[in-house]
Amino acid sequence: MGIKLPTLEDLREISRQFNLDLEDEELKSFLSLVKLQLESYERLDSLPDYTPKVKYQRTLGRSPVKEENPYGALVWVTSIKGKEEGKLKGKRICIKDNVMVAGIPMLNGSKMLEGFVPNMDATVVSRILDEAGEIVAKTTCEDLCFSGGSHTSYPWPVLNPRNPEYMAGGSSSGSAVAVASGYCDMAVGGDQGGSIRIPSSWVGIYGLKPTYGLVPYTGAFSIEPTLDHLGPMANTVRDIALLLEVIAGRDGLDPRQPDSLPQPPVKPYLNLIDGEIKGIKVGIVKEGFNWPNSEKDVDELVLDSAKKLEDYGIKVEEVSIPLHRMGLDIWTPIGIEGATATMILGSGLGWGRKGLFETQIADLFGNSLKSKARDLPNTVKGVLMLGYFMIREYNNRYYAKARNLSIMLKEAYDEALRKYDALIMPTTPMKAMRYRSEPSFDEYFIMALGMINNTAPYDVTGHPAMNVPVGYSNGLPVGLMIVGSYFEEDKILKIANMFERMKK
Amino acid sequence: MGIKLPTLEDLREISRQFNLDLEDEELKSFLSLVKLQLESYERLDSLPDYTPKVKYQRTLGRSPVKEENPYGALVWVTSIKGKEEGKLKGKRICIKDNVMVAGIPMLNGSKMLEGFVPNMDATVVSRILDEAGEIVAKTTCEDLCFSGGSHTSYPWPVLNPRNPEYMAGGSSSGSAVAVASGYCDMAVGGDQGGSIRIPSSWVGIYGLKPTYGLVPYTGAFSIEPTLDHLGPMANTVRDIALLLEVIAGRDGLDPRQPDSLPQPPVKPYLNLIDGEIKGIKVGIVKEGFNWPNSEKDVDELVLDSAKKLEDYGIKVEEVSIPLHRMGLDIWTPIGIEGATATMILGSGLGWGRKGLFETQIADLFGNSLKSKARDLPNTVKGVLMLGYFMIREYNNRYYAKARNLSIMLKEAYDEALRKYDALIMPTTPMKAMRYRSEPSFDEYFIMALGMINNTAPYDVTGHPAMNVPVGYSNGLPVGLMIVGSYFEEDKILKIANMFERMKK
Repeated sequence: MGIKLPTLEDLREISRQFNLDLEDEELKSFLSLVKLQLESYERLDSLPDYTPKVKYQRTLGRSPVKEENPYGALVWVTSIKGKEEGKLKGKRICIKDNVMVAGIPMLNGSKMLEGFVPNMDATVVSRILDEAGEIVAKTTCEDLCFSGGSHTSYPWPVLNPRNPEYMAGGSSSGSAVAVASGYCDMAVGGDQGGSIRIPSSWVGIYGLKPTYGLVPYTGAFSIEPTLDHLGPMANTVRDIALLLEVIAGRDGLDPRQPDSLPQPPVKPYLNLIDGEIKGIKVGIVKEGFNWPNSEKDVDELVLDSAKKLEDYGIKVEEVSIPLHRMGLDIWTPIGIEGATATMILGSGLGWGRKGLFETQIADLFGNSLKSKARDLPNTVKGVLMLGYFMIREYNNRYYAKARNLSIMLKEAYDEALRKYDALIMPTTPMKAMRYRSEPSFDEYFIMALGMINNTAPYDVTGHPAMNVPVGYSNGLPVGLMIVGSYFEEDKILKIANMFERMKK
Repeated sequence: MGIKLPTLEDLREISRQFNLDLEDEELKSFLSLVKLQLESYERLDSLPDYTPKVKYQRTLGRSPVKEENPYGALVWVTSIKGKEEGKLKGKRICIKDNVMVAGIPMLNGSKMLEGFVPNMDATVVSRILDEAGEIVAKTTCEDLCFSGGSHTSYPWPVLNPRNPEYMAGGSSSGSAVAVASGYCDMAVGGDQGGSIRIPSSWVGIYGLKPTYGLVPYTGAFSIEPTLDHLGPMANTVRDIALLLEVIAGRDGLDPRQPDSLPQPPVKPYLNLIDGEIKGIKVGIVKEGFNWPNSEKDVDELVLDSAKKLEDYGIKVEEVSIPLHRMGLDIWTPIGIEGATATMILGSGLGWGRKGLFETQIADLFGNSLKSKARDLPNTVKGVLMLGYFMIREYNNRYYAKARNLSIMLKEAYDEALRKYDALIMPTTPMKAMRYRSEPSFDEYFIMALGMINNTAPYDVTGHPAMNVPVGYSNGLPVGLMIVGSYFEEDKILKIANMFERMKK
């Protein structure tokens, strides 16, 4: 490759930027030192990078045609088949476009990624192919996944199939709509502030954000490593359980699942769904209702649905977790400063963790940041400016404090979860928001971030949380969220299964 | 507190720096948005930070007087006692000065930390006090720990008690010397490139870098979270085992030991030392010898010592691990770009990990970086300039690639460790280097980083590695390194115990 040496002027500029006050004589000494150290870099450059092998052949596929894509859910259509036999045989599966599928263009909802073609399959992708699932499309997602609406996505927005005047919700907008509209059986979504659960709620499907670290994030575009999750979305609880079973477990490459420790417990979720339900206790979290942005019909339908669990022998009580009301405030500096560090300063990869780094992302996205940062969406421009200001002005202390407070937030939920098997509240305080093609500056941000108050706290703490569709109000779906203890996805699925049965 | 709002000029400057090309009208819109988001920050500010409670009272202590500190090992003298009874009763223990002891000034070897008094005890500190150990001093360490010599430390260098014309080695220089000179029984050291093992080798004591994640790093000053380790240093193998037993295990605050997963296995090391040794096989790593900077007497003494294990029924063979020769090259971008990100851009804390963040460090060190960066040691100035250049110019891709290659490096060692219970090589290719009070620019760097070729690879891969003193040559100690599989510290200690017996 031939690594470019810094010039004396480069070093002078860096010395000035960091107030090192170095004289030219000193800079010259450092420059000759740098030359020595770059020999290490040259040797490193001569080794091939470590990239997981692509196991199954595929053809390229194509852009969707308009007729098959009425709501904008699909961004690329393909057909990739892996093993002939397996748990997912016969299932059509979509993959959110922030997840790498080798050979298939990937946009992550952003002009910034134009021209990007991944050279590897994300772990979830190869696991789906290993179990005979057919990957049929990449789905549209919000621009760099930084929105809970479905209006920021490039190349097109995603509309709600229940009523196309409304947003589908995001950032896994296309995955939710592809499932809801019957284009596929299941989809993989991603969730950093609620991005699996919000669109599941707004279009009326099931969507599970698993326990932090249960499903490998390897090969997916990061917002912030402590918030990043992937998980299943589907029309039935059984399909959620089945897909989770396939994609969960250590891959040896995700630092959320350290190689050095026993692996996260993967359970036979599908078999456990129908298990004994009597004796289960759920707590309705008072602070998840009656927000300033809550809709009354949503609160009521969620409450009524939860109470119906009593008919099935489940004990339902109200529980108060005051700190839940601060969850979004704790999420905010992690989402803002953390994303600035990982996505912007760290070129989409960041630092300070083990595991696989998708160097290809750094190369392409890092260069886009240099050549066309103006194509960033306003959401991320806002994140960058406030995030960089806070990092520089306050030495990163609010990110740090927010992570510390998340220890207390986790304990607040765990305290309730020692009394209850699961917690319940509305997934989003409101039904789907209206789609606006030319929102004002302020509307754009409300449409992007004005619905994450109940979902975001569990991205911070890592608890598993699932959207369950419990009915309609004014023609739009209403979603109830079930939250469980770490790795107790089986209990969540059991309770979700009761809700599903109620509807039949 | 009252958080300072950015001005329009602040946003304009950031927009320019990141090529966002925003017009003033847009900037004004972003400014009003920022005001809203800062309400979240204000609420966060109103909550107390989460800080672990200090369990035991203490008096301040004092600076050491010259007579008790002939080699410069001590930087602060105190006497802190915890519980009355416990495993460490009667033991005098020193703590490296990159580890927080509440109420006791901490310099981490640097002018940059002047005035810093921690408000919490590191986990290792409270565990020592819980087991009735007496903490008697904080020990001098290299400036921000970024050196394997003992000449960069502030307020004074540390000299080798075996011959004060030579360096003690570092960065845990004071801990090694306090142990070697009999000032204490045991000490805690830190290791990111060899900083426990190098001074142990040069002064002739035992020093163990445990498996990554076995001993919590909570409350210690970071260089780079994937490289950071703490571990025991002592005059006997038994004391290493005993101290390890006390400080190992999950603390619920270190993200290296995720809360969500089973805890790292802690073993009764002291009891296991004398276990059966027959059938054990060790591999002498060919590539650990005969470096350009190797001293012949060191290679020979290590080889001869290893072969003596055969007299005790241990099988000794040579093994070749070619990639070991690239270990330092793989360490380099992680050490350089990673430290730039965590220490400089991230104010000593960084991003992208869970667990406790010592906000106090960000406040003090972050402000020092603004007001007196010229007081950084040349080692760290060099790191910063090359690190920042490489991050900016190459989008962080070399850090990423090096972390990927560390997966292959770990596998190369693991492959050998499937055939052998442990690996052996010289800890440092040479005996202690001569101390120079006014080294040239180049000498300063050779004295700081010219000895880490065998040690640094195991900070990258996380394998446990221990220095064992095996004799003297020309009046200076020679150290042999034993490397084991993850969490097999017990095997390493057993083998070290054989070496110790040989000497008796």
